[in-house]
Amino acid sequence: MAIRSSEQYRAGLRDGRRVVYRGQRVKDVLEEPELRLAVEHSALCYDLAETRPDLAVDVEGGEKFSAFYHVPRSVEDLTRRGSLIEACAAAGSGTIVLKEVGSDALFALLRATEGEGAEKARAYFDRVRSQDLALAVAQTDVKGDRALPPHRQADPDLYLHVVDEDAESITVRGAKVHTSFSANADEIVVLPTRAMGSEDRDYAVSFAVPVDTPGLTLYVSPYSAGERDSFEFPVSSRHKLLESLTVFDDVRVPRERVFLDRVPELAGPLAIAFVDYHRFTAVNYKLPLLDALVGAAHLIAELNGISRAGHVREKLTSLIAYAETVRGLGQLAALRSRPGDRGVQQPDPLAVNMAKYAFAHGFHDAVAKVMDLAGGLLVTGPGGEDWANPDVRPVLEKYFTAAGPAEERLRVLNLIADLTARDFGGYQAVLATHAEGSLEAEKMQIARSYDPAEAIAYARRLARLDD
Amino acid sequence: MAIRSSEQYRAGLRDGRRVVYRGQRVKDVLEEPELRLAVEHSALCYDLAETRPDLAVDVEGGEKFSAFYHVPRSVEDLTRRGSLIEACAAAGSGTIVLKEVGSDALFALLRATEGEGAEKARAYFDRVRSQDLALAVAQTDVKGDRALPPHRQADPDLYLHVVDEDAESITVRGAKVHTSFSANADEIVVLPTRAMGSEDRDYAVSFAVPVDTPGLTLYVSPYSAGERDSFEFPVSSRHKLLESLTVFDDVRVPRERVFLDRVPELAGPLAIAFVDYHRFTAVNYKLPLLDALVGAAHLIAELNGISRAGHVREKLTSLIAYAETVRGLGQLAALRSRPGDRGVQQPDPLAVNMAKYAFAHGFHDAVAKVMDLAGGLLVTGPGGEDWANPDVRPVLEKYFTAAGPAEERLRVLNLIADLTARDFGGYQAVLATHAEGSLEAEKMQIARSYDPAEAIAYARRLARLDD
Amino acid sequence: MAIRSSEQYRAGLRDGRRVVYRGQRVKDVLEEPELRLAVEHSALCYDLAETRPDLAVDVEGGEKFSAFYHVPRSVEDLTRRGSLIEACAAAGSGTIVLKEVGSDALFALLRATEGEGAEKARAYFDRVRSQDLALAVAQTDVKGDRALPPHRQADPDLYLHVVDEDAESITVRGAKVHTSFSANADEIVVLPTRAMGSEDRDYAVSFAVPVDTPGLTLYVSPYSAGERDSFEFPVSSRHKLLESLTVFDDVRVPRERVFLDRVPELAGPLAIAFVDYHRFTAVNYKLPLLDALVGAAHLIAELNGISRAGHVREKLTSLIAYAETVRGLGQLAALRSRPGDRGVQQPDPLAVNMAKYAFAHGFHDAVAKVMDLAGGLLVTGPGGEDWANPDVRPVLEKYFTAAGPAEERLRVLNLIADLTARDFGGYQAVLATHAEGSLEAEKMQIARSYDPAEAIAYARRLARLDD
Amino acid sequence: MAIRSSEQYRAGLRDGRRVVYRGQRVKDVLEEPELRLAVEHSALCYDLAETRPDLAVDVEGGEKFSAFYHVPRSVEDLTRRGSLIEACAAAGSGTIVLKEVGSDALFALLRATEGEGAEKARAYFDRVRSQDLALAVAQTDVKGDRALPPHRQADPDLYLHVVDEDAESITVRGAKVHTSFSANADEIVVLPTRAMGSEDRDYAVSFAVPVDTPGLTLYVSPYSAGERDSFEFPVSSRHKLLESLTVFDDVRVPRERVFLDRVPELAGPLAIAFVDYHRFTAVNYKLPLLDALVGAAHLIAELNGISRAGHVREKLTSLIAYAETVRGLGQLAALRSRPGDRGVQQPDPLAVNMAKYAFAHGFHDAVAKVMDLAGGLLVTGPGGEDWANPDVRPVLEKYFTAAGPAEERLRVLNLIADLTARDFGGYQAVLATHAEGSLEAEKMQIARSYDPAEAIAYARRLARLDD
Repeated sequence: MAIRSSEQYRAGLRDGRRVVYRGQRVKDVLEEPELRLAVEHSALCYDLAETRPDLAVDVEGGEKFSAFYHVPRSVEDLTRRGSLIEACAAAGSGTIVLKEVGSDALFALLRATEGEGAEKARAYFDRVRSQDLALAVAQTDVKGDRALPPHRQADPDLYLHVVDEDAESITVRGAKVHTSFSANADEIVVLPTRAMGSEDRDYAVSFAVPVDTPGLTLYVSPYSAGERDSFEFPVSSRHKLLESLTVFDDVRVPRERVFLDRVPELAGPLAIAFVDYHRFTAVNYKLPLLDALVGAAHLIAELNGISRAGHVREKLTSLIAYAETVRGLGQLAALRSRPGDRGVQQPDPLAVNMAKYAFAHGFHDAVAKVMDLAGGLLVTGPGGEDWANPDVRPVLEKYFTAAGPAEERLRVLNLIADLTARDFGGYQAVLATHAEGSLEAEKMQIARSYDPAEAIAYARRLARLDD
Repeated sequence: MAIRSSEQYRAGLRDGRRVVYRGQRVKDVLEEPELRLAVEHSALCYDLAETRPDLAVDVEGGEKFSAFYHVPRSVEDLTRRGSLIEACAAAGSGTIVLKEVGSDALFALLRATEGEGAEKARAYFDRVRSQDLALAVAQTDVKGDRALPPHRQADPDLYLHVVDEDAESITVRGAKVHTSFSANADEIVVLPTRAMGSEDRDYAVSFAVPVDTPGLTLYVSPYSAGERDSFEFPVSSRHKLLESLTVFDDVRVPRERVFLDRVPELAGPLAIAFVDYHRFTAVNYKLPLLDALVGAAHLIAELNGISRAGHVREKLTSLIAYAETVRGLGQLAALRSRPGDRGVQQPDPLAVNMAKYAFAHGFHDAVAKVMDLAGGLLVTGPGGEDWANPDVRPVLEKYFTAAGPAEERLRVLNLIADLTARDFGGYQAVLATHAEGSLEAEKMQIARSYDPAEAIAYARRLARLDD
Repeated sequence: MAIRSSEQYRAGLRDGRRVVYRGQRVKDVLEEPELRLAVEHSALCYDLAETRPDLAVDVEGGEKFSAFYHVPRSVEDLTRRGSLIEACAAAGSGTIVLKEVGSDALFALLRATEGEGAEKARAYFDRVRSQDLALAVAQTDVKGDRALPPHRQADPDLYLHVVDEDAESITVRGAKVHTSFSANADEIVVLPTRAMGSEDRDYAVSFAVPVDTPGLTLYVSPYSAGERDSFEFPVSSRHKLLESLTVFDDVRVPRERVFLDRVPELAGPLAIAFVDYHRFTAVNYKLPLLDALVGAAHLIAELNGISRAGHVREKLTSLIAYAETVRGLGQLAALRSRPGDRGVQQPDPLAVNMAKYAFAHGFHDAVAKVMDLAGGLLVTGPGGEDWANPDVRPVLEKYFTAAGPAEERLRVLNLIADLTARDFGGYQAVLATHAEGSLEAEKMQIARSYDPAEAIAYARRLARLDD
Repeated sequence: MAIRSSEQYRAGLRDGRRVVYRGQRVKDVLEEPELRLAVEHSALCYDLAETRPDLAVDVEGGEKFSAFYHVPRSVEDLTRRGSLIEACAAAGSGTIVLKEVGSDALFALLRATEGEGAEKARAYFDRVRSQDLALAVAQTDVKGDRALPPHRQADPDLYLHVVDEDAESITVRGAKVHTSFSANADEIVVLPTRAMGSEDRDYAVSFAVPVDTPGLTLYVSPYSAGERDSFEFPVSSRHKLLESLTVFDDVRVPRERVFLDRVPELAGPLAIAFVDYHRFTAVNYKLPLLDALVGAAHLIAELNGISRAGHVREKLTSLIAYAETVRGLGQLAALRSRPGDRGVQQPDPLAVNMAKYAFAHGFHDAVAKVMDLAGGLLVTGPGGEDWANPDVRPVLEKYFTAAGPAEERLRVLNLIADLTARDFGGYQAVLATHAEGSLEAEKMQIARSYDPAEAIAYARRLARLDD
């Protein structure tokens, strides 16, 4: 079928998957209103085939495929993928939608697996592309004591590992955290979380399983649970991301779905390959969020009547420089990209990590500046129920008029509150620090991606050391 | 009666006050569960007379008075007030509780009013102290177009003003925003929001009225509405602050309650005097919040097993330096304080504004560091309903064990999430930027409190300009 | 002759130019040892035709031309120019050398003049290129009271202006500051310093004159005067930049050398066009300086034996990220460039200003980090005369050995001291803040180069304002 | 004699001391013009007894003593000492003068030595005080490979150690770096540089010797050598600090001058005790430098005609907040001080390290801001020889007039250049990072001086961990 509609995507989620939400087993994710919201959010990336076919659809041999599954083989491919991700995130009001993460994992598998594993990865990729499946990626293990490697944990299950095998399958046990989209994806791709030594052999495993595989349970986080009024929460009332603790309780995985079967030396390269693509995704999907902050900051400065003050102009410029530095370095990551193993194009790791670092490092300050421009009404203003009440609204209209009408001002304030101050804003702030690798991880990758030899040689020359 | 119990305080709130919450008129704030939570929070400052009589109770002529109403007349008085406010905020889990703000306003009125107004202020102060009343302070006008002074606004009501008068009273119209505690105070003190010129005469007004005064309506903000599970929200399930749009729709104020009656030249001094005390309050009531961040950061670093990493130690030290710089400068504001007009002790304005600026300027970065140490579980972890389910809890206990038990870790993560990432955290972040004066206001006061003459003279000497 | 040797360049400087240095008229800049050092420095850009002909030489119709005068007409042209500038600055130990600035001015004249002026500019360009002349650029007027436009200054000469004219010439009076290379260039190009109104007509003037033109006097700054030992000052003993107050005391300029003759509406565009090219030059010529800092920091950390400490790795990574962000954004300025007027390629103004801002904004912190890694010996260590003394050197060799030999360590320390702590380092720091436009100028250009319309529209959509 | 005049101080320096400067043995430090400048600078602290007897002189039993040697035993004593140091540094144009450092060492010896060593320290202190001697302090060893403790260095002399002993004396070998005032002090006090283990026993030594002791050679750093014009270098033409590599080549020390004789467990406490006092000194002696920056920034903003621009006001306020935060925390270090061992008052270590950290951390940014306000003339302006030339000066007066006369502007620019951009400015910048302990040392002491127990307990309570 090659390309699916969002309706087909939704229908595909009705299976025996075991999902626990707010302490209860959920029978059907389409029937639970909050999980349904997450499904509707992710459905946007299927809708994109209709709304932005120029970016979202590949035509090959007369057949249509999702461009998310277009393996990048050139600077142009990666640049186009960047645009696709940005457009998708724009539809998603500044958040990742769904297919980005699975395709990142597939490119990593195509590039960083070897031998039989690489063949299986290729076959799996072809199936995902031709069926237009939605994949979640479970990478981060629960990790236990972070000072210890997997095989030395008190409980061996604190990293996911192979506990049994037979001719047709391996059996795995353990748990992954921060699994985005798990409950509304078709399948889950498991990747190793880090480099591993020979004693961690059983932990060096990568595979994919359908979400309804026996033994697999998704404990979806209730963060930011509850219904949202659309006046008060213009973004989070329409968009939701879900994350789960993803428990593999002796899950059998057929051998044709195992891409890395206890090969510790490939665990690190595969983990890093994914992270390269995923950070490239990140610096593109964050752009609409940054644009929203820049735009909202300009709007509220205007509506509050302060847009001419020196410190306001300074803050607006600083927000522009922040957003455009992330955009610029992200663009550079594509422009400087080079073919990696098996011809899969690799974003420039230095540029992509600098872009991600610039994003993460500057986010809290940007939020502080936007809050500063917006004012205290972010947390003391009226709500949707007030606005809806015909006796109350005129009072609000009278008293919240400033350099623009009260309604515009309140709606922009609510947008800013949603993006920065309320639960959803906190979610964004934590994501900025931790998603797709922490600040410390990005710093480490910057140091690793940079070869200081030339700079050292130049400094030696200037110091007249090698005269 | 001099000192009231928290039970007496609660009982006093049952009157005809007109409160609108979430679009509905609330008959009794003690019956509305969320407003009740705010009442319980504020009741803590009455309880303090029991739990910390050393700080919270003055004995005078055999009678007990609330130490919140102890007019500071020495360094020791202000230092003790600082300790009282810090202890009260510690009980309030790092937030202001209630009486702080009203007493700040009273000290400002005692110091900065003149003539008949000063006499009325003194009489009012005596009544408040002897009846141990709880006061809210309504200072910030809705302001309309901020580029224009009060009398030039399109709608004259965008700053509160006198619209009529007779022998016994004046009548006022307008609205104040960000009025904390309005719905759970006994009375509301109105202060001017800024310096005013002679054409703004009708706007230069200060008075106090009981909350149930006819014509007064409180539109309480629904920010962070909803019930909270105590496992998931350890702080915000127990504490709530409320803020209102406070509308004066032709409210009659008896003349004995009017402290400033159209005297524009005193509007600025009175506004600033309040802000001096209120920023001193702020830098003291924020200390438990900062201690909570420092303590939680140490705890989670230990529980995550990362406390020995170099970057972790760096972040912990930076948090300590941040919290203790605020504490130190706040302490200095008392130690450097001097008697102001009418003998009311005045916190050193330079130190108090530097302390407040240090707090506000560093808050977002401190939050980012704590989030960094805590990890992504802040927004992807399990909730109270998961924890309560006997089938789910063992899974969580198994997989969230790290360098300490899962329960400790999840509880500390929830504390951090509550303080930094969820609605309540966003509230704290916006408060850091805007409450008790914005960053820009603090910067302006630093510049104004500092006399550069000596530094300029010294530089001239060094430049040999006056040889 | 098309391309000149550095010997020809030196010979060309022997004319009747009026140069004042350290209070004395200098007869021949080649005979004054310190000015001679500046000449030798600038001669490097002529030597480059020998050492890097791939970058520095254009061959056209069998004739060779300096590639500095290659008018950019494509992304590739600008990218190659970036490489040329970087290579030239590498030879110059991280400083601008000479021809960069004149060619920047020529491109601006080609792009932003009109009519007859444009024809003269083209003719002048052809002559400069075919004779391989070295140009200085005098743009910044002394300015007087910065709050006033040119025509309202107390002294009309505080901006350079036309005071007389006849059929063949105009006569100008005024003074320019910060004129780099003036005393060792062949000619001086004068550009307007800012946008001008119709009343500033006489000030809207651009032309070129030979340095020995009557009425022109160069007061060269003595900053960092004095001879330098090459052990102690490895860079500044070999390289010098000179800057002058350039006084035009009724200088007659032949009409064919006048590119802008009292056309105020073109003053701003011409000034900005120059700045675009010149900031592009800046972000490329600064790269070797940044590489030197990064390389020296790695070296000294190793030699001091501290390269494994956490805080040291953090500082090194931060230096890498800083240098590479400037490099990346500079590269992007070429990659995003577009044809400007008359087909002259225009670096992307947003990227070029962000690159320059990133450079300038981060420079002081980078210096502080390098100083931190190097240690106090930067200012307490031994000097060249100590090192040269055979009785003293063994003591130094014994006691300054650390994780590497004393000589390597002292030489690297001296490199760092030269680049950061001594006069030359101070020069670099002031340049970082002010050269090619101040921090504030870059911020202004960032705000101007960015069109917020899309971001605002997106924010409005998210706020549901245009539903 | 108790208190000496500066003339007596100078006379005392004429002895057989072995000083090497710029590769040459110096016979008499009073005859070498540059070292003489350092002597004159230090003589200021003797002159202070005349100019500020209120601060600089103690009268006891009718006799006068230098107040630098007043052992602090109360908050008032430390506060007065802070004022004395600030006044002395004001005379020294923002630099340390001389007696501060020796008295810091004496207080540390009085507090942190034990038994016989303590007695000798007390006797030594009495002699220094009654003879009003000037002491240098040699603490920092050359250290070799910093990853290794003293006894494991390849060359055992890389830390100073005992190599022999007899009944009357011990003999020491090794070298100390960064010894300020060594060549113009009467005696040198040697302190251990760090905590030591039992195998470092021979290195745990403290003593004092006259500067002319045989075997002692001072290799004075030539940093910033050369004469200075007083127009161009208003500060550094009048003030000089000297630092030496201080080599002990089998120096015999009489036993009565040995305060710590191979007692490794006291090495750390003694080192830290000195650092406490010395950082307290630092945060006081830096205040005039900070005042000079604040004052010069105000002056130049005014003279340049930009003092009303928003960004200028922002920068001035930031400079004020920086200087006053250092002053405030330094003051707090005295106000919070407590009696240490043997009743010697101990500055609050948390406050003193926060003050020092605030100073060091903010210095480079403050310099950048002052440079920004001053403009490029800092490094392109005219010099003293230009100003002295009657033909040149009128040109400078004409063209450097701005919102104030050219002379004022040039003198203030030269002051700023001297403090921030020239050699002397680089010296200040390196000192800010390294003197009296590096940034990393201050951070470590902040972490050590802070007991997190209360904050952790509070966080546990809020997290409901101990319910």
